Amino acid sequence: MTSELGHYETYIFDLDGCLYTGNEPYPGSIALISYLADMNKKIIFLSNNSTETSDEVLANMSDMGFPVVGMQAMVATDLTGKYLLEKYGKVTVSVCGSESLEASLKGFGHRVVRLDDHSTSEFIVLGRDVHFNYEKLRRTVNQVQRGAKLVLTNSDVYHPGALGERVPETGALLASVLSMLDSPSVIAIGKPEPYPFQKALELSGTSRDACLMVGDNIYTDIKGGSNAGIDTLWISYHRSRPRASPVPTYKVSTIDGFFRKLRNQI
Amino acid sequence: MTSELGHYETYIFDLDGCLYTGNEPYPGSIALISYLADMNKKIIFLSNNSTETSDEVLANMSDMGFPVVGMQAMVATDLTGKYLLEKYGKVTVSVCGSESLEASLKGFGHRVVRLDDHSTSEFIVLGRDVHFNYEKLRRTVNQVQRGAKLVLTNSDVYHPGALGERVPETGALLASVLSMLDSPSVIAIGKPEPYPFQKALELSGTSRDACLMVGDNIYTDIKGGSNAGIDTLWISYHRSRPRASPVPTYKVSTIDGFFRKLRNQI
Repeated sequence: MTSELGHYETYIFDLDGCLYTGNEPYPGSIALISYLADMNKKIIFLSNNSTETSDEVLANMSDMGFPVVGMQAMVATDLTGKYLLEKYGKVTVSVCGSESLEASLKGFGHRVVRLDDHSTSEFIVLGRDVHFNYEKLRRTVNQVQRGAKLVLTNSDVYHPGALGERVPETGALLASVLSMLDSPSVIAIGKPEPYPFQKALELSGTSRDACLMVGDNIYTDIKGGSNAGIDTLWISYHRSRPRASPVPTYKVSTIDGFFRKLRNQI
Repeated sequence: MTSELGHYETYIFDLDGCLYTGNEPYPGSIALISYLADMNKKIIFLSNNSTETSDEVLANMSDMGFPVVGMQAMVATDLTGKYLLEKYGKVTVSVCGSESLEASLKGFGHRVVRLDDHSTSEFIVLGRDVHFNYEKLRRTVNQVQRGAKLVLTNSDVYHPGALGERVPETGALLASVLSMLDSPSVIAIGKPEPYPFQKALELSGTSRDACLMVGDNIYTDIKGGSNAGIDTLWISYHRSRPRASPVPTYKVSTIDGFFRKLRNQI
């Protein structure tokens, strides 16, 4: 491994849209992860997934064929409860999101109460919620109007689905909520915010110079990594970089291209 | 009726938030409408309501005690189908909105198909939809990505509900949809767009100088009326005019205040 891409000690990977889409690994991604593991590199998965817990994500990856034993995943679902605990202690929250998000918040010791008109929550946590609806929008907005703090797991507006479809993400649900508020203040957790990168760095046990962030999303992975002072590798999947967007340290077209470049094959 | 507010031939009224809230008439509003009718003034109700038809709105008003016989309501629900018919002829639409909105579109001769993954609609009509949810958001966005034109009944983000609650309106649902689109183009129908005012003027049979628009919403009633060259009366309900907002011709605090001013009692 003499490539300049091979000198890092820790490789932080985005997941959905980077290593796989849905439950389909991209060509070369399993081989890449195996190769880095064989080289004794530290591997951390850092995802804005807000519907599944870190353990659920690792189990899915294992089912897809990734060698995840001994690897760590940090996903927005769990980072949210962790952040609230570190910053505010154990709090009372209502959740507009998945059952896994609720379970994760409870796991960090928070008190989870129903998102109804009578709850007196200190925080409303908004994650990707496939059961989001008009009524939840109304309740979320009016709870915030009454003083609850709005917490956003991640700000992505959509992720790519089958046949190039756009699958709504937390940020799209947030847009409705924000449109109804006068001077909204939102506590955002996921990439590109500093918190996930700070936690990943702590977990790596290495200096930031020794870490590389690998991702396909220029506004979360590359911007966040760059803000955190970490080198970044953008998997462009043949997209061109949007104007005025952050500049990645490296760019390759596919995850397989990264693998081949790492082995000096291209 | 010697007041300067009494010289108009046609009085165009906003409804919810102006004459009543929910099903509760504001003090003085029934007496005002009766008084203007006795003076042989033309009365037109112009509302951004996108969940009920004009007939349903008039029936509700009658139940509340308003003397609506011979009066006309033009609401966004019906204006949408009318606009599409006048501009594009009979078209194929999918609806993200109420059953009344669907029925109204059918009434104008449009073909209404289900908002599903297989429909090939030319237009998606978005109205206030109390059954709006994650799945409808996904389908709406991906239909627009495949070429359907997005039609918005009205752009209000909320209307006031009981105890000062914010009740989500069409514009709040639109915010989610727009957040997921790259270069969205939206055909908007309701106030402050010109179409409702143009139709109200036609219906009045009077010149624009002889019309007064009365409403509580500075951004729809007052801005729209002002753009249409009609004098406007803002019922402020003790709010102050937001900075950089349009300037109404007249301002009173309550609908009862308008009634008293009209009769030179204040």
